[in-house]
This record gives sequence, C-alpha cells and structure tokens, in this order.
Amino acid sequence: MGDIAERTSPLARDVLLLVLAAPENTTWKRRVLERFPGLEVRWVDSRKPDGGHLAPDDVPDEVWDGVTIFYSFTPASPKRMAKVRFVQVSSAGVDLWIDHEVYKNPNVPFCTTNGCQSPQIAEWVIGTWLSSQHHFLRYAENMKEGLWDTSIAANTEDSVSLRMGILGYGAIGRHCGKIAQAMGMEVYAYTRSERSTPESRKDDSYCIPGTGDPDGLIPAKWFHGSSKESLNNFLNQGFDILVLGLPLTKETKGFFGKEQFEILSKRKTFVSNIARGPLIQNDALIEALETGKIRGAALDVTDPEPLPKNHPLWKAPKIFITPHISWITRVHWERVLGLLEANLERLHTEQPLINVVNKDLHY
Amino acid sequence: MGDIAERTSPLARDVLLLVLAAPENTTWKRRVLERFPGLEVRWVDSRKPDGGHLAPDDVPDEVWDGVTIFYSFTPASPKRMAKVRFVQVSSAGVDLWIDHEVYKNPNVPFCTTNGCQSPQIAEWVIGTWLSSQHHFLRYAENMKEGLWDTSIAANTEDSVSLRMGILGYGAIGRHCGKIAQAMGMEVYAYTRSERSTPESRKDDSYCIPGTGDPDGLIPAKWFHGSSKESLNNFLNQGFDILVLGLPLTKETKGFFGKEQFEILSKRKTFVSNIARGPLIQNDALIEALETGKIRGAALDVTDPEPLPKNHPLWKAPKIFITPHISWITRVHWERVLGLLEANLERLHTEQPLINVVNKDLHY
Repeated sequence: MGDIAERTSPLARDVLLLVLAAPENTTWKRRVLERFPGLEVRWVDSRKPDGGHLAPDDVPDEVWDGVTIFYSFTPASPKRMAKVRFVQVSSAGVDLWIDHEVYKNPNVPFCTTNGCQSPQIAEWVIGTWLSSQHHFLRYAENMKEGLWDTSIAANTEDSVSLRMGILGYGAIGRHCGKIAQAMGMEVYAYTRSERSTPESRKDDSYCIPGTGDPDGLIPAKWFHGSSKESLNNFLNQGFDILVLGLPLTKETKGFFGKEQFEILSKRKTFVSNIARGPLIQNDALIEALETGKIRGAALDVTDPEPLPKNHPLWKAPKIFITPHISWITRVHWERVLGLLEANLERLHTEQPLINVVNKDLHY
Repeated sequence: MGDIAERTSPLARDVLLLVLAAPENTTWKRRVLERFPGLEVRWVDSRKPDGGHLAPDDVPDEVWDGVTIFYSFTPASPKRMAKVRFVQVSSAGVDLWIDHEVYKNPNVPFCTTNGCQSPQIAEWVIGTWLSSQHHFLRYAENMKEGLWDTSIAANTEDSVSLRMGILGYGAIGRHCGKIAQAMGMEVYAYTRSERSTPESRKDDSYCIPGTGDPDGLIPAKWFHGSSKESLNNFLNQGFDILVLGLPLTKETKGFFGKEQFEILSKRKTFVSNIARGPLIQNDALIEALETGKIRGAALDVTDPEPLPKNHPLWKAPKIFITPHISWITRVHWERVLGLLEANLERLHTEQPLINVVNKDLHY
C-alpha cells in the first residue's frame, strides 16, 4: 500500500522547507513522513545564537534545492522560490509578500496561519481592556509602596451592556466577540463584503474547537464596506472598545487619523490594535490620548517596529504597548504545525486548502 | 387605588433607613415612594469630608426612630435596630453580622447583594489571570524604559483547554465560569451541598441578565462537601487557576495553609482570592510563592485590611494585590438599589425575598 500511496500521492515528489524559530519537532516530522510517503521535509531552526533570526535567503543553496512547499514568516528571493507551488506563511497577514513575484503568480496558493493565533490574541485584547477599565497598572504601582488606596476604584466600569466594535470580523475578532459576549457586552462586526445571510456570516478560516464564532452568531449588528465613509459610519456606533483587526493594505494604511479619533471621542472609545501598526497615524493617536478624546489604547503593533527607545508613543498617557507578542503562546508551534499538516492532507487528497489568501484583497 | 394600596400594603407603616456611601438618588426614592405608598425612606450619605465613613450608630437618634427596614454595609447596635424586621446588607457576605443579636433573630430575614457584584468581580478574576498569564505587568515596566523586549513572551500560555476550579459556585463564581468557558477553559465547580440533579444546580440568587450561569450548565464536573478531605480532593483536580469564592466562616477561616498549597503545587495553580482574606494563611501563601509552588496569586482581599505598608505580602513574588475594590463599579449603586427595590416589591406582594441568608450557613 505504501508503494501505491507513493506513486499516487500528489505530494510524492514534493520537498517541504520549513524555516521557523523552533527546534525540529521530530514527532511531527515522523508523522508527516508516514502520512505522505515520498514527501521530503527539511527543517531549519532560524534562531541564531545572538538572538537574531536567519532569513530564508541565508539558508544554504543545497537546502533550497528542489523546494516546492515553503513554510516561513518572511519571504525568500523569487529565484530560490522558483519551484515553489504552495506557501504556508507563518503569520495571519501577508503584507510582507504583497509585491513578491511568487505571490503574484496566481498558480501558487498562499495560506496564512489565520485562526492559530486567535485565542492568545483575543485574550490579549480582553486582558488589556480589563486592565485599563479596572486600573490594574495603577494598583501595581501602589503595591510597590505598600499603598492601600481604594480611591482609584471610583471610576471603574465593568463591561455589562458596553459595546465592542470589531473592525475586521475574522478569526481573531470572532474570539474577541465570543469572550466579550460572555462578559455581557454587545458586539458589532465590520467586514469588507456584505454578510446579510446566515451562510455568508460563517467563517471558513481555521478555528480551534470551542473558540471563536465560526457561524457568525454573536454580532448584534453587521456593517460592511471598504470606503472611508462606511468605515467612519462604523466608528460612529458608540463603541466602548474598538478592536482593529484589519489587514494592512494600500487602502487601510494610515486610515486612523485625526478625523477618526474625533468620531471616537463621542464615547471616548478604547482602541485596541492587534493588527498592524501603520493602520494608525501616530501623531493623531498621541493627540487623542493627550486630549482625552479616547479613554486609552492598547497596541501590540506599532509603526515602526521595534519602536525606538525614545519614541513619543511610549510616553503617551493611558497607552499600553507590547512588542508584537500577542500571537505568542507556548502551544503556538503545535497549532501552526497542526494547520500545516491539515493543508498537506488537503494537497494529498486534492481538497481545497484552509486559509487560502485572496490575492486581490490580500487576506 | 392609591388609598387601597396604602391600606393594604405590608409596607405602609415601614420606615426604610439607607446608610450608604452615595448621595441620595432622588429618582430611585421618588419611584419607590410611588410604588409603595406609606413607606417612609430616610437616606444617609455616609461619606465624611475627611474621606472616612459614618457608622450607622453615628446617625442621630431621630433618624433611627421607628426604622423597620435597614440597608447598610456595617451593623448598628441591636438597641437601635430593635424594630427592624428586614435587613438588606450592602455586601455579598454577612461575616460582620454573625454574632449580632438581630441577625440571630430567626424572624428577621437578612438579604445580601449577592449577584450585584458578579460582573465586576468576575472581570477582576479574569483580568488579573490574563495579566499574569500574559505578563502584562512586565511589559508595563519595560514601557517606562522604552524597552522593546519580546523575550518575555516565550512562556506565555493562553487559556484554551486549561482548567479553572471554582471553590464556591455562587453568583460570582458562575460569571467567572461563563467567561472562562468562552475562553475555551474547562470549569469544575465546588459547592457545600451536593448538586447532582439539574434542578439542584440552579442558583436562585440575583443574576444580572446575560451574565453568569444561573442554570448551572457550565461546569464539566461538580464537587461538594464541607470537610477538609472533600476540599482537598477538589484542590487536587489539576487546576491552572483556582477561584476562592467561599464565605468566611469558622470552618473556612485559615483553611488555606501549607498542606493546601502543597496539593496545588502539582499544577502550580494560580490562586485568585475575591472572597475574604482570612481564608488564607499569609505565611503559607508567601512560602508557596517564594518557592514557586504556585505560579502566582491575585488577592483583592487580605488579612488584615487595610494591609499595613510594610506587610510582607506586598513584596511576595508574582502576587497582585488590590485594596478590596473588585466589587466597585460605576453602576454599583444602581444595581444594589435595583435589588433592594425588588425585595421591597417582594415584601409588598408577600413573595419570598431574593438572596435570603441561611443563618446556619451564613450565606
């Protein structure tokens, strides 16, 4: 049977190269080799002793020889990727790939790890929101002095009946929505295309069982569009918290400026950015925080990254910044390798891949 | 009709005294006076200019004259409460009342505000848990230096498939369970009495719509008992987080000692105490944190309170302490007055009261 599988498997002559910041997972590799006879797997741990990372182009020529399936966070040169027929990117966005020759080839599907990061990122959103609403950082400061000061609590606000707007109701947004709903919040969703039917509200991206809102049942209201007017109209819905889950594209870059913060000022919306830093104009954000137009902001992404030591964003009032780590979890590699394996299975059985990027929309 | 109501209302000759740290809510008072003709309402704002609080016994004699219904956080002397026939305490526990003469009178029902605090306290539990698991306080420290350090994230763990134990599955615990379940956690519940049937798993305490688990559908497993053995057996269920929601009674005081932390060390359980400080022996907790037996602790309650400036608890590693404020929310008074009004309605129509304390169990 091994022979037959080998002869008939569409993966029998493929070479998979993984470039990732983790030691070889021998259990996974052995299982994959057994499941897909003929497939060759080359694993490159990209971590360098100095704490930096090997780029895919730093990998020796012989390791690249014959590679047809590529798993990586960052791109390699088009020349090295000449034989690649499927790319599994190791992130939820493809903004690093948009101008890449191989990406532009309609015959090479790109898949994201969309959905693998949803639990940890949604927890980051909910956790930073609660930390702000319940003033946890102020109590942490008081702890250092042994100061028992209850006065901070006077303007604590719990989440019951508050409203969360999710700009980009994808895998991450859906898990934010699930937790928010459990806390008693009302959830409004925004998507690029209209989702007026139950069927259209479903999400076909990867979903970890028990998480998210794969059927799109949570939002009380749905909004859609790609124009500035439709986005502004969404911002105007009286949100206590707005979650930015938009992909970074030419249309969305710098979308969040003075005008948008002005709209949010009506409700002093808390802004949570777990998508990409350049969605927001830094000056406008700092001004909105300094003048109290918004109640606070949590950023896991900034522009630029890393954020330089003396950048004014660090010192803005009521801001919380983490260094683009919200996607990290102990079980990260387990989850993404599970997704890659599922996609290899799809190639093997010639079924549609999971998380295929629409190259017109770049997500 | 007003006349008939006045003549027939069981509240027609009652005098309600409220002693609370808030200015008179005239809208509420007017509505109550209209709903319950003949009822007299006396509102005492207990806040003193120096930041302290007026005790009920500091309220002048004439304000106490004829009082039959008493709403307060702290007790008044039995003499002043001689005519009181119903006490609505302004807290979820009655530990301040246990030895009080009026409390011991079986004919005077005491009701708690159980359920009014569930959203904010459950959010405190979830927020401090996420803050610990996602290392938010360490990022907050790095922000001060403008330090972009991603290495902290390596041992971040999201909540999917982790297990929460809730010791005391009452109103607060049920809302913790609801949010935890939405995050993908497994919830185990512990109650004093056995809850083996669907009917027995229901909770009749006050529940804010859309919150909690009034029907008791969330726990994957139920445990019960009041012996040390049954409690220890519960602690031994491999919890990532344990929520202490027990009332403080003679049986539970100091229950959490060295032996209990030893049991929790198997899974390095995070301990969240939102009940009462004296449940835990401070020395045992500090030792468990210092030796890494548990991964961390969040305390909204301590022993004593306020915790003195130089108390060693403040400096224990991986501890987060807030000054007994988790119950506070902007809409606190709105919620408790809503509950008091509902209980006045029950007295008016001679229906069973909400949140009546069982004086054998003290909750």
